[in-house]
Amino acid sequence: MTEPTGERFAGDPPPALRGAVVDLLGVLAYGQLTAFSRLAADAESAPDLLDRVSIAELAGRQLAGFDLIAERIQYLGVPVAEAMRPFVGPIDAFHQRTRPANWLEGLVKAYVGDGIAADFYREISAYLDSDTHQLVDRVAATDQAGEVLVKMVRGRIEADPAISGRLALWARRLVAEALSQAQRVAADRDNLTGLLVGSSELPGADLAELVAIFGRITTSHQGRMSQLGLSA
Amino acid sequence: MTEPTGERFAGDPPPALRGAVVDLLGVLAYGQLTAFSRLAADAESAPDLLDRVSIAELAGRQLAGFDLIAERIQYLGVPVAEAMRPFVGPIDAFHQRTRPANWLEGLVKAYVGDGIAADFYREISAYLDSDTHQLVDRVAATDQAGEVLVKMVRGRIEADPAISGRLALWARRLVAEALSQAQRVAADRDNLTGLLVGSSELPGADLAELVAIFGRITTSHQGRMSQLGLSA
Repeated sequence: MTEPTGERFAGDPPPALRGAVVDLLGVLAYGQLTAFSRLAADAESAPDLLDRVSIAELAGRQLAGFDLIAERIQYLGVPVAEAMRPFVGPIDAFHQRTRPANWLEGLVKAYVGDGIAADFYREISAYLDSDTHQLVDRVAATDQAGEVLVKMVRGRIEADPAISGRLALWARRLVAEALSQAQRVAADRDNLTGLLVGSSELPGADLAELVAIFGRITTSHQGRMSQLGLSA
Repeated sequence: MTEPTGERFAGDPPPALRGAVVDLLGVLAYGQLTAFSRLAADAESAPDLLDRVSIAELAGRQLAGFDLIAERIQYLGVPVAEAMRPFVGPIDAFHQRTRPANWLEGLVKAYVGDGIAADFYREISAYLDSDTHQLVDRVAATDQAGEVLVKMVRGRIEADPAISGRLALWARRLVAEALSQAQRVAADRDNLTGLLVGSSELPGADLAELVAIFGRITTSHQGRMSQLGLSA
């Protein structure tokens, strides 16, 4: 892990937001770390060497994103492991409940699952300080694994169109499980929930904003599904 | 994978060495890629979050080393997958025959196994052009994972000294399997063998040099074993 330089940060987030910032960075850090593990495992089960290299490189990008977030967490004076710990249970549960049956399901999970998570983190970060918001944007951009995965999945579906129904079903299960674990996090972590629904210290999003947020996340998700050639 | 820039290379190796260079870079590339996979899997089974992060970062360094080698292979006009392909069989066989029974054996394998492989590649690269030699040195330096792994393994042995006998036995098995696969590679790849034992085009190392090479590799290996607190 690179030593924290803190150079690129203007300063600490406002005190009222600090808990939410650490929570968001913690869940994001552990999400990146597990995405790294999953992609590294996907790389290993790739059917050929070229695909193996491409997916290993995607795993490397997740780790690079993790490094950026870890640096910021350390800058805020919080041990990275401590910031991640509250989210180990829900994220591990998500992965245990969505074990890909094969390589292709792993790729769909990486593209659809990581994509929806990134959108969600970006939307939340808009309610935080601009340093955090920019960092989350930057990590999401680092993750842009889109083209490579889309090409691989589309190639397989074109070769065997019959698999598309099963993959679409798989994607729906991923989203349902992600939502279910997100609700669990929301119930546990007032810091994050407060950003969206308001708290004594934070105004939160109003209902129209919430509708708009979920509308944008849904639209992006449908865009990814159609990129893969799957019906959402 | 980064696009090849070729900027840091003075030029092509001499024609008589080209085959050996491509072979050495190919075996090294696939070795790095599998070391990445193994460390990523070790990270996932780490007993705590801090260790998990440290080992994931080591995996990331193996991938960075892979990128450097892949760039050079592409610069030489050879597809990376093609350069690696002859070595997939022997390296996969090595990993299949040395599956760690637990996390600690995985760490010893990473430290002892990758260490001896790196020494071996460095010794061979001394017979090649200086660009290749420097690149192999640089990758070996990038891999310097020593301190982190040593600290973890030593800590576990101190907490439970009874495991050191089993781990020393494990390390001996790793070396024996590595030698056995290296012999298989040597029998198949005249390009590499020619460097050490000579061929119609290359003078090769003389007997005194061979003895010195294996002496240095053995000494380094014993050094790593004693770093871990194990008898070689």
